[in-house]
This record gives sequence, C-alpha cells and structure tokens, in this order.
Amino acid sequence: MNFVLDPRLESDSEFICDLNLSQVRLNLNAAFPWIILIPKKSELVELIDLEEADQTLLWHEMMKASHVIKTLFNPKKLNVAALGNMVSQLHIHVIARFAEDKAWPNPVWNSGATRQYEPTEKESILARLKLAFEE
Amino acid sequence: MNFVLDPRLESDSEFICDLNLSQVRLNLNAAFPWIILIPKKSELVELIDLEEADQTLLWHEMMKASHVIKTLFNPKKLNVAALGNMVSQLHIHVIARFAEDKAWPNPVWNSGATRQYEPTEKESILARLKLAFEE
Repeated sequence: MNFVLDPRLESDSEFICDLNLSQVRLNLNAAFPWIILIPKKSELVELIDLEEADQTLLWHEMMKASHVIKTLFNPKKLNVAALGNMVSQLHIHVIARFAEDKAWPNPVWNSGATRQYEPTEKESILARLKLAFEE
Repeated sequence: MNFVLDPRLESDSEFICDLNLSQVRLNLNAAFPWIILIPKKSELVELIDLEEADQTLLWHEMMKASHVIKTLFNPKKLNVAALGNMVSQLHIHVIARFAEDKAWPNPVWNSGATRQYEPTEKESILARLKLAFEE
C-alpha cells in the first residue's frame, strides 16, 4: 500500500483513528472543530483517482465523519470539501461551522482565524472523537 | 418532489442539464470553470440529509461532473465542496483550479476574483458542458 502521510498534513493535525480506507485526524486549528480524512493509498490526488470500491468506502467514511461531527458539536452547517491546492495528497475536510465562529459565513481556509488547542482541551476533543468513531 | 431552486443560486448560475438526481448549473463567475450540482429534492441542507440511495446517485453525479471538468479544462486541481454557509440549499461545487488563476492556491470563495462571461464565451462553455454531460 505504501501510504505515507504528507509532512504538512502530519504537522498540522493529530491522529484520531484509522477507518477501513481513511486515516482520520484532528486539524490543530482550534478555531473550528475540524477533522480530515486521508485515504491510505499512495499517489492519490483527486477523488476520481480512487478505484470505484474505494470511492464507495470513502463516501461512507465521509458520511460517518459528518454524523460524528454533527452529533458532537451540533453545528449550524457542515463544510465538506476536497480542495488540495496547498497539499496535493488527497484529503477531505469535515468542519463544523457556527454563526458565531471567526470566519462565518466565509470558508475557514485563508480566513485568518486560528487558535491553538490548550493541552487538556485537545486531549478531551481527541478522546470524544475517538469514542464517537468507535460507535 | 417540490424542488424549488434557491433564488441566489438561480441568479448566480445558468442551467446546463438535469441528471437523475441533480440539476447541473454553470456558475456565472467566469474567473474559474465552475459548476454546481443541486439535488432536486426539497428541504436538503447537508449531504447526510439525503437518503442512502440518493447519496449513491449524488456521488456518481459528483464523479461524472469531476470527469467532465477534468476532461474539458485539464485543471491542475479539482476543488469539490459542499459548504452552504451563504445558501443553505444543498449544492456541491466542482471547480477547475489552475496555478495561474486569480485565487490560487486559496479557495475561490471570498477571493475577490470575479469576471463576467462574454456572451459568446458563455454560449460556448455552456454548449461544451451540455455535450460533455451527454456522453
């Protein structure tokens, strides 16, 4: 399989869990509840690069992630996106958005809204996410 | 079914074609080759609001749209996203991005990059898109 996580994705996020196809990671920008799914196959850039069976798996994992984020954070809106302009390795963002967040109603990318997690806060959100993905 | 297109989506885009689930429209911001899929069901806001059979249909239509945009425009990167912070009616963006476009490598939304289509240019791109979706 030879999956190697892009170094920028690795440094900007922290491991939550492995699903069948994707690794799920917490984006370390605490301004938004924000997770990232990275299919664990090499050489993937676009969604259409995935084989059909993996596309089905990924969709189910994106929907699972959407349900987890909705249940844990009760956002006004989910943002689900595969952009990859900065990091080409295929990755899918699932983000909880709120009318009172620092970027609303604009997208989170390039919004200037950033915050570091407090250590206990990060441990807590990671624990809640891990548990929710096990259910 | 009672599908009514959101007035803002309607005024910002032009009809390309109807697929089984989604209406496909051209975003009238000519700064980027940019199409939008709107599932023709009422009361949809999130991807997870779709029934499972419709999720499968939507995924296939998103991948069809991705192939069409890749084939016609040969972009450096596809951006595929369901955001909906401004217009809550569920809609999926499929956008061709280039290293030389006005927003690269940032997202297109809120980038300030806007351009109107020339009439003949718009007719041409609409005709090419309609044809590509028929194939």
